[in-house]
Amino acid sequence: MAATAYAIIIAGGNGERFWPVSTPERPKQFVDLFGGKPLIRHALDRLEGLIPPERTLVVTARRFVAQTRRALPSVPPGNIFAEPCRRDTAAAVAVAVGLVKRLGGPEAVGCILTADHVMEPAAKFRRALRDAIRVAAKKDAIVTMGIVPSTPATGFGYIRRGETVTTGTKTVFHRVDRFVEKPDLATARDFLSSGDYFWNAGMFVWTARVMEAAFVAHAPDIGALIGTVSAAKDVSAALRRAYPPLRATSVDYAVMEHADNILVAESDFDWDDVGSWESIPRHFPSDPQGNACLGDPLLVDTSDSIVVSDRGRVTAVLGLKDVVVVQTRKATLVCSRDRVQELRRIVARLGTRPKRPGK
Amino acid sequence: MAATAYAIIIAGGNGERFWPVSTPERPKQFVDLFGGKPLIRHALDRLEGLIPPERTLVVTARRFVAQTRRALPSVPPGNIFAEPCRRDTAAAVAVAVGLVKRLGGPEAVGCILTADHVMEPAAKFRRALRDAIRVAAKKDAIVTMGIVPSTPATGFGYIRRGETVTTGTKTVFHRVDRFVEKPDLATARDFLSSGDYFWNAGMFVWTARVMEAAFVAHAPDIGALIGTVSAAKDVSAALRRAYPPLRATSVDYAVMEHADNILVAESDFDWDDVGSWESIPRHFPSDPQGNACLGDPLLVDTSDSIVVSDRGRVTAVLGLKDVVVVQTRKATLVCSRDRVQELRRIVARLGTRPKRPGK
Repeated sequence: MAATAYAIIIAGGNGERFWPVSTPERPKQFVDLFGGKPLIRHALDRLEGLIPPERTLVVTARRFVAQTRRALPSVPPGNIFAEPCRRDTAAAVAVAVGLVKRLGGPEAVGCILTADHVMEPAAKFRRALRDAIRVAAKKDAIVTMGIVPSTPATGFGYIRRGETVTTGTKTVFHRVDRFVEKPDLATARDFLSSGDYFWNAGMFVWTARVMEAAFVAHAPDIGALIGTVSAAKDVSAALRRAYPPLRATSVDYAVMEHADNILVAESDFDWDDVGSWESIPRHFPSDPQGNACLGDPLLVDTSDSIVVSDRGRVTAVLGLKDVVVVQTRKATLVCSRDRVQELRRIVARLGTRPKRPGK
Repeated sequence: MAATAYAIIIAGGNGERFWPVSTPERPKQFVDLFGGKPLIRHALDRLEGLIPPERTLVVTARRFVAQTRRALPSVPPGNIFAEPCRRDTAAAVAVAVGLVKRLGGPEAVGCILTADHVMEPAAKFRRALRDAIRVAAKKDAIVTMGIVPSTPATGFGYIRRGETVTTGTKTVFHRVDRFVEKPDLATARDFLSSGDYFWNAGMFVWTARVMEAAFVAHAPDIGALIGTVSAAKDVSAALRRAYPPLRATSVDYAVMEHADNILVAESDFDWDDVGSWESIPRHFPSDPQGNACLGDPLLVDTSDSIVVSDRGRVTAVLGLKDVVVVQTRKATLVCSRDRVQELRRIVARLGTRPKRPGK
């Protein structure tokens, strides 16, 4: 009998990386930069035929609930849960385990998915996830999705594979030897050439029973939330009481790095964390001068730049190279291309400015 | 008896230099960049106590008539005249001479003034103009305002002075030796150090009788317009008939360079043609990093830049040097500071783009 699977989309985000298109009030999973719909909608649509919207849950911040409902009209409003406050991923995943146990019982499978990545093609993603669901149930394992790396990226954590496991699936599974923090460039190059490392995509699959056991073994204080959520009369009320006292820590640090029944699914779909404006040239064609543009900006003697213009506005760039220019209805960013990682300095200072008329 | 004086403000302009704040539909004399009101309003207010609004005339393009009325509510609407088409300054000045003759008779004095310059302090300007009016009437001369140069500017024409003339005024007047085209930098430096040259500000003062005689002597085809305008039953109708066939040429080239009764008034008020975004740092204080800002932009690690932000919008610049960033309600310009002279390339291309929604 196939396991009943639930998708749990974790939608957090602080909106700094794509400012001013994303903002603290509207982080990147809600903006419509890639492929005509918000990333969170891609996250749902990508599950089509595998997990229906009725079994798709979202764990997000209170201030994103309304946006989530608008972006995902096919998901029942009762499937969208608000964290009363931010407590990092361990607490959010414990909520997810509690919800899956509550709705599907201890043998139901939960898939922790992200809302702010581009993954293509969807069919490859679905095959890997389908196999991960099967293997998680059959092997009593926590299955993490390991992305076959294409570059020596220093911005991601890595997973070193151990022995390969026989599963009878098209997707290849390995034991996890260990999780590795973000490496320096030389180390990342070694990882890439060795073929033994995958990118840690932050997506993982488990039965409620297995994941609860891992929490109980390695982070029992946070794991107590699972029983609270699964047995609560009113989940929201229970969260309001039980969530704030929890410590803020990542699920990798609290559970994954300590559990021994972890497998990695060798996932060969394209995966991009679209982590900054620098992602734009990877997803949109460049002109002969090396400019990647969204909207219809007017460039004169400009090269190797990223220019994003809101519809109905004119954005003109003259005589520049290696700049990022982003114009929205309310704000304009002009930034040296090698400084996009520092956008948080802008967003932080905006938060301290007095509001002005029209803002 | 003091001569009756009329001011004629010539308000043309093509709106390229301060794009996107100025546009072909709203050239710089109508924008409110300097001192809280449009430059054309400064041009009027600067005359206060010397020439009243009732004796202030404006010659402008048809598409600027409504803006002129709004900017100059104290000027009678009948004092604002539209050129039926563009025919350069000789034809516009001939209209002005015709209007002064019509309204004040041949001995009335006309002052051709510009609408797109910053001149300060107004009291010094008024004294120079008052003296020029007196001398033009008394000496049967065309008096041109010569600005004492402060830099070896290459963007202006110059006037070389001849012998000094006794006038009994505080302002010193000289005969004009010759008009000089825009010089190269080495020549401009020689001009500056010699003390014999003034900037040609394009402002000059004459009685209708003297100026008509100069037109008749040196450009009779255009000068015929003076009689037409002064005698017309309906000035607008007369212009619609007589103006389009005229040749387009400058008054300097057609008349001033040939007339021999020209004096230059040594004018020591500050005069700035605010010819481009590069003018901004001359009129607004810079921050310690050398940035001149209008509005309230947010600059991080940015230096030697000019940043203009519309109220109610956020303009953020990160990690750049020597750029010009201008954000308005409809458009954003990002430009290398050494390329502002090429803004016409942007404006020209905008004219050929299809209109988009919201524009």
